[in-house]
Amino acid sequence: MTGRRPKPAGSADTPRPARRRPATRIRRRSDPGAPPGTLVADPLAAKPVISAMVYSADRIEDYPDCPVSDLAALHRPGQVLWVDVVGLADIDLIEQLGAAFGIHRLALEDVINVHQRPKAEDFDDHVFIVSRMLVPGRGTETEQVSFFLADNYLITFQERAGDCFDPVRQRLAASRGRIREAGADYLAYALIDTIVDGFYPVLEQYGETVEQLEDEVIARPGIDQVDRIHSVKRDLLALRRAIWPTREMVNGLIREESPFLKEPTRLYLRDCYDHTIQLMDIVETYREIASGLLDVYLSSMSARMNEIMKVLTIIATIFIPLGFIAGLYGMNFNPDVSPLNMPELRLYYGYPLALGLMTAVAAALIVYFWRKGWLGKS
Amino acid sequence: MTGRRPKPAGSADTPRPARRRPATRIRRRSDPGAPPGTLVADPLAAKPVISAMVYSADRIEDYPDCPVSDLAALHRPGQVLWVDVVGLADIDLIEQLGAAFGIHRLALEDVINVHQRPKAEDFDDHVFIVSRMLVPGRGTETEQVSFFLADNYLITFQERAGDCFDPVRQRLAASRGRIREAGADYLAYALIDTIVDGFYPVLEQYGETVEQLEDEVIARPGIDQVDRIHSVKRDLLALRRAIWPTREMVNGLIREESPFLKEPTRLYLRDCYDHTIQLMDIVETYREIASGLLDVYLSSMSARMNEIMKVLTIIATIFIPLGFIAGLYGMNFNPDVSPLNMPELRLYYGYPLALGLMTAVAAALIVYFWRKGWLGKS
Amino acid sequence: MTGRRPKPAGSADTPRPARRRPATRIRRRSDPGAPPGTLVADPLAAKPVISAMVYSADRIEDYPDCPVSDLAALHRPGQVLWVDVVGLADIDLIEQLGAAFGIHRLALEDVINVHQRPKAEDFDDHVFIVSRMLVPGRGTETEQVSFFLADNYLITFQERAGDCFDPVRQRLAASRGRIREAGADYLAYALIDTIVDGFYPVLEQYGETVEQLEDEVIARPGIDQVDRIHSVKRDLLALRRAIWPTREMVNGLIREESPFLKEPTRLYLRDCYDHTIQLMDIVETYREIASGLLDVYLSSMSARMNEIMKVLTIIATIFIPLGFIAGLYGMNFNPDVSPLNMPELRLYYGYPLALGLMTAVAAALIVYFWRKGWLGKS
Amino acid sequence: MTGRRPKPAGSADTPRPARRRPATRIRRRSDPGAPPGTLVADPLAAKPVISAMVYSADRIEDYPDCPVSDLAALHRPGQVLWVDVVGLADIDLIEQLGAAFGIHRLALEDVINVHQRPKAEDFDDHVFIVSRMLVPGRGTETEQVSFFLADNYLITFQERAGDCFDPVRQRLAASRGRIREAGADYLAYALIDTIVDGFYPVLEQYGETVEQLEDEVIARPGIDQVDRIHSVKRDLLALRRAIWPTREMVNGLIREESPFLKEPTRLYLRDCYDHTIQLMDIVETYREIASGLLDVYLSSMSARMNEIMKVLTIIATIFIPLGFIAGLYGMNFNPDVSPLNMPELRLYYGYPLALGLMTAVAAALIVYFWRKGWLGKS
Amino acid sequence: MTGRRPKPAGSADTPRPARRRPATRIRRRSDPGAPPGTLVADPLAAKPVISAMVYSADRIEDYPDCPVSDLAALHRPGQVLWVDVVGLADIDLIEQLGAAFGIHRLALEDVINVHQRPKAEDFDDHVFIVSRMLVPGRGTETEQVSFFLADNYLITFQERAGDCFDPVRQRLAASRGRIREAGADYLAYALIDTIVDGFYPVLEQYGETVEQLEDEVIARPGIDQVDRIHSVKRDLLALRRAIWPTREMVNGLIREESPFLKEPTRLYLRDCYDHTIQLMDIVETYREIASGLLDVYLSSMSARMNEIMKVLTIIATIFIPLGFIAGLYGMNFNPDVSPLNMPELRLYYGYPLALGLMTAVAAALIVYFWRKGWLGKS
Repeated sequence: MTGRRPKPAGSADTPRPARRRPATRIRRRSDPGAPPGTLVADPLAAKPVISAMVYSADRIEDYPDCPVSDLAALHRPGQVLWVDVVGLADIDLIEQLGAAFGIHRLALEDVINVHQRPKAEDFDDHVFIVSRMLVPGRGTETEQVSFFLADNYLITFQERAGDCFDPVRQRLAASRGRIREAGADYLAYALIDTIVDGFYPVLEQYGETVEQLEDEVIARPGIDQVDRIHSVKRDLLALRRAIWPTREMVNGLIREESPFLKEPTRLYLRDCYDHTIQLMDIVETYREIASGLLDVYLSSMSARMNEIMKVLTIIATIFIPLGFIAGLYGMNFNPDVSPLNMPELRLYYGYPLALGLMTAVAAALIVYFWRKGWLGKS
Repeated sequence: MTGRRPKPAGSADTPRPARRRPATRIRRRSDPGAPPGTLVADPLAAKPVISAMVYSADRIEDYPDCPVSDLAALHRPGQVLWVDVVGLADIDLIEQLGAAFGIHRLALEDVINVHQRPKAEDFDDHVFIVSRMLVPGRGTETEQVSFFLADNYLITFQERAGDCFDPVRQRLAASRGRIREAGADYLAYALIDTIVDGFYPVLEQYGETVEQLEDEVIARPGIDQVDRIHSVKRDLLALRRAIWPTREMVNGLIREESPFLKEPTRLYLRDCYDHTIQLMDIVETYREIASGLLDVYLSSMSARMNEIMKVLTIIATIFIPLGFIAGLYGMNFNPDVSPLNMPELRLYYGYPLALGLMTAVAAALIVYFWRKGWLGKS
Repeated sequence: MTGRRPKPAGSADTPRPARRRPATRIRRRSDPGAPPGTLVADPLAAKPVISAMVYSADRIEDYPDCPVSDLAALHRPGQVLWVDVVGLADIDLIEQLGAAFGIHRLALEDVINVHQRPKAEDFDDHVFIVSRMLVPGRGTETEQVSFFLADNYLITFQERAGDCFDPVRQRLAASRGRIREAGADYLAYALIDTIVDGFYPVLEQYGETVEQLEDEVIARPGIDQVDRIHSVKRDLLALRRAIWPTREMVNGLIREESPFLKEPTRLYLRDCYDHTIQLMDIVETYREIASGLLDVYLSSMSARMNEIMKVLTIIATIFIPLGFIAGLYGMNFNPDVSPLNMPELRLYYGYPLALGLMTAVAAALIVYFWRKGWLGKS
Repeated sequence: MTGRRPKPAGSADTPRPARRRPATRIRRRSDPGAPPGTLVADPLAAKPVISAMVYSADRIEDYPDCPVSDLAALHRPGQVLWVDVVGLADIDLIEQLGAAFGIHRLALEDVINVHQRPKAEDFDDHVFIVSRMLVPGRGTETEQVSFFLADNYLITFQERAGDCFDPVRQRLAASRGRIREAGADYLAYALIDTIVDGFYPVLEQYGETVEQLEDEVIARPGIDQVDRIHSVKRDLLALRRAIWPTREMVNGLIREESPFLKEPTRLYLRDCYDHTIQLMDIVETYREIASGLLDVYLSSMSARMNEIMKVLTIIATIFIPLGFIAGLYGMNFNPDVSPLNMPELRLYYGYPLALGLMTAVAAALIVYFWRKGWLGKS
Repeated sequence: MTGRRPKPAGSADTPRPARRRPATRIRRRSDPGAPPGTLVADPLAAKPVISAMVYSADRIEDYPDCPVSDLAALHRPGQVLWVDVVGLADIDLIEQLGAAFGIHRLALEDVINVHQRPKAEDFDDHVFIVSRMLVPGRGTETEQVSFFLADNYLITFQERAGDCFDPVRQRLAASRGRIREAGADYLAYALIDTIVDGFYPVLEQYGETVEQLEDEVIARPGIDQVDRIHSVKRDLLALRRAIWPTREMVNGLIREESPFLKEPTRLYLRDCYDHTIQLMDIVETYREIASGLLDVYLSSMSARMNEIMKVLTIIATIFIPLGFIAGLYGMNFNPDVSPLNMPELRLYYGYPLALGLMTAVAAALIVYFWRKGWLGKS
């Protein structure tokens, strides 16, 4: 197969969809039948690192690697606490954290089992939000980011190091925008908005890939394009599976009657909701175009086959009868035995007549093909 | 590829869909993670030009190039003020305008980021409407037109010079219809109605293209038609993406409980809503026909291939056996060595018998094909 | 292309769908940006002819060509007035009529712009109904019939002479059924019911066409069938576009809270609603079958191609090797020069051996094909 | 076409779907424009035969051929009367019956026009139910069964003799189950349940046909299978059209607020509703599988064509060059004239060299095909 | 056909979907027309074995083979009784059980007729739940598990021995998790959750199969893949038919107002509901990918056919004209008779000229093909 390139998929210079299948493979961590709320760490999960930020409008404190035991002291009224847990391998630590903030075991189980669909659930003490963030530089692969939002704290869980939250951290540090004045709900919004916006550049790449395929499929259809179209379709399917429930999750947050989400933040979430609708719109548009491309490919192939067959048919159909005539006069019937045996061979004009016959047959066939329109452009 | 014509797409004499892809490519202006309400001008945006009209039933004033600072004075009770901003490059100016009329930053951000879907949002001080207007003479390309509608003013933002609002301006100037007596909400309706009506002529062109393709695909299927069908489908997809949310936007306005939309105007909007439904109806009909055309193309190609193969098969199948017989008697086995070596060559009727054998074989095959029905019309 | 017949489409003996495209082409009469309620006559519209009927249970009066000015006198309490306007070319006359009965300008505009979708709208003084009637004898072409229904009058607007209302007129004249006792709403129902029933015979023709195509596509697939299947699909799409909103319109009438529609009439409308559902059901069934037929066609073509290729392959594959052997012994290597030069030619059994070799090769190939199953029925 | 068998379709030993098209053809009995409630008998309808049963928990009376005039006397309080009318040809008789039991004319019209969709309608004096019963032994053909259910009577109308109600009659006669204690609503339920259950065996046959086609299409694809797949799809479409509204009808009965349907019967109807959902489920599953089979067929055909073409290409491509070489040395250039004229013919090793050249060419081509993978299994 | 392997389908080492069709064949047990609530045992059903467990937080008793008569004594207040019936052959025994716990006959009938769709129904004395459990080691085959849940007992009916409930039994025995403290509703949840989780490993296998097919279809398309794709599609359809109503069933339980389902358990069911949504999501994703694979297959086949045809056309088109020239000079016209008869044969440079002519023709054709782009990669 010619379409596979050994180039690493995450390389920045090519928008080609990677041949990984992140979103179509799901494994449940816990065994079927395990009691609900059973926390079993993914053997591949990273060691957790906890960082905390405490801020109010006038000050901000940053604790890059903060033990769980210190978190309680940071949870102070009038200030917003953001606890960011990166890596989910240490069940004990996560359980301590859960205990410290009164998190329901079922929610903790969803934090550990990182194949949840985005959703927003209202518990008594907090709102539990699951979202999926594109892993930077890895195509359509997503990791789960879980949020626990309460009145003045926000806990986020990420699967591994590397996220797209740096702009938010910088806005917090630089006190840009209203982020420092607003509460934990605005912080949650800002992070979700960043996650949602992160889908745009990836979709843009697929837009370019689709356009490129559109040009190629007509100009020079080849089997590697089929492979690429199929890959694009599958990747868009994966993106759709990430974006569609995100849309519902954001919509759920807007409608949620939780006291932890204040009215102004809902207005901002409405803006974020518009983005998720637009993302779905783009994904669906690209999927429809990509689906159409396979039809174009088949039609294009069919046209090419037609052209090939025409060439074969014209050449074969003209020369096979001529060859037959030549073969006829190559027969060795003995003219000496009988005047009936190939008298043409001894005619004075025998050869010119034979050539003339051949020319006439060829001309008749060419006229026939010309009238059928096979000799012009396909 | 033969289907691409260098002719400019906007030329009036050909309804061929242009090979631009305006609506399937979307770029977000602000970086992911930028604070919401960040206003970043599109580097390609035009310099803003502000024009204002103040009118009541008995008088009308026109200020073609009006500084922002003068607008406050024009906002007088009992009169309707229409501020039309063309070009979005100057963020400062737009912020001043926003401040002067109390526009929410999130709405201003949507004005600048010109890839919004049509929508209607109810703010406290105004209704914010986003719509998409076909750029005159550029096929399915749309530009964003944003409206801020309040009790006695309407602010519109357009991306660039050139719009379809001249008939409305003339009606205002000439005091034709009820436009001068009615309020700002009727003006907004009149503009939206003009935008919606602007889709009809473009759709009509696609109607003609589709009909032309219908005729061609059956009569002489060619690969350039596949290209054109695909283009039509993609363009109709783009139109659908513009019209569908417009329908929802108009419906939203009808149902909006805002005090800025009065009852009589809602009746007119209902009429406009009917038009958006009809547009969707036409778009979907054309899309279904265009989709069907690819099937027709494939079927047509398949029929042609069949015909080509039949010709090849008939000629080859008749002459290959004849050629074999001719070849047989062209062998040089030495009849002198043995009476078994090609005694036919010395028969008195050898040659006529060979010709007769050939004729019989050919006749048998022709009868065979005739009974198979391959010799008639395909 | 062989499928096009010059026969007139409306001729009764053939159910073939006509190659007109009435329902997929729509032109808006008024220019984009014209003030709403602008009445611009279609240049092709017919001159209006107004006829009026006034009836009660015991008497009926008929005024075949009645001036607008006389209508007011005919509008008497206790009697039902039916004004039937045929032809929409005279804007003045229609405006006078509108003024006489207090019709809203927006509704009048919809009367003139004859490409409305069927709908029912509730105005204060009347119910405004738009429906689409099949033009007798012109396939799927429809014309718009607009109704204004109030307490004791009904005004209908038709595009041109010729309608399907004669049975209703006869029932009125003959006082058959309950039509003379019931009010204007029952008359409106009777007319709508007649319009809806008019779709049945046309659909029946398509049913026959579809069945005929089903038989032909398997028995002798040809490209003209593809053309006809495509035509049927497009015509059914057009019918669907007429029937679907009719269904909604009738449903709207049943639910309408207007005082002009009395309870017993709603019961009759429920019956009419059942018919529209059944019509949609039939249309969708035929469309699905017609769509399936293209797949059958392609499969059928594919099977035929296979058969053709098999014949070619069998003949060519058997005779090409035989021809090669014959050619081999037709070479002119000089046996006198060397004992290695074609000693076969001088063998006593040379020729029989060569023939035997050919027979063996042919037999082997025939066995090969037989075992592949290519020699039986396809 | 080989797929058509002359065997009668109703014969029990073959599950092949019959090539009748009962459900896709509909004719309205009354002319368009006829007054509603017009009763026009189907010219093909059977003469009506009225039978009546009167029963209570302790006794049952059977009147196999009962005149209409006697029915009033059988309608006694405390007993359930079941009037079963088979055959709809006698309009007078049906009108008398309607008058005797106060049946609305619109409902009577629906009884006569036997192409109604299943539905349940609530009239003041009775519930009117239309259902469709599979005609025993005639594939997917259905006949209309109409029910009028009131407090203590049930009237059923069937199109023709022969139904699936015998088990219910036997349960009535034998007083098996709760049927004799329960009221007319339970009897109606029992009959509807019998009708619904009657779809199972027919669907089972289609299940077998679909499975058989699945095996055949892969093993030996042929055009008759396309015909059969298409028939199955169309028949399932017909069944779907009968079952889908039945589901809605039963659901309507469950929700109906009519006093004639008592609470315990609704519980039984819920069970019947489950069956209709399951039937729809099966129909849709079979339809999806059947649709997939056409794709499998095309893929299978395509694979076969590939194989055929490979054989042709291999044989032709090997022997055509060899034949050319043989032809070359069959030319008659006179070697005596010039030493350049075919000196090979006089070489000592001329013939072996020519044979060697041929062998080399053939070997090279075979290696080429082998490396292309054309010589292995397809 | 090459795709069928005789390997047993349940063998663990291959994820290939089995060629059994469990879910697309349904047979109703009772005859159409049998009275509702008729209990007819499946002739293939297993003999019932009843086991009972009685537990409270501090103790647990296990009765592996418990007669029906003993169950009443085990039904004690303050303890939860779980009666597990495996095998449905003994109608009497099941009726006794039904009588002992006041189960409605219609529910019992659904227990026996093991082709119910999953559902939850609220009876007065208990909640009746039907679910479908994957039979361990038999691919997509499911068996029906019926639940009767009341305040302090749960009765489950399974079709045959072998289930996936052992982990729950172990948790009960070991008093792991909250299962022993919670009531019968939590037990029901735990069992349903186990059933739902049981779909994950099977879906994972299909995920692997689909990925494998994706690789194969491009690399070496063959007809056995079509068979496998079709099998995967049909199996996923079967899984969808099991999972979709399960989702509704769980949702129904969450919303059920039954007193037998307590609030905390509903929270757990919400978690279970998320799993059913995720399962549906995966099934639909795999189905879309599998559907796309058939298109990829056809495109791939089409590309291969093109390549084959190109090779044939190039070889045939080059050598047929050359062969004709060779045949021409193999004719036996007698040059002695006339100077016009093949004078070329006696030219000094005749043979080299003929060879040159052939080379020129071949070169011209090669250039032609090269310019058509047929000589490069396909």
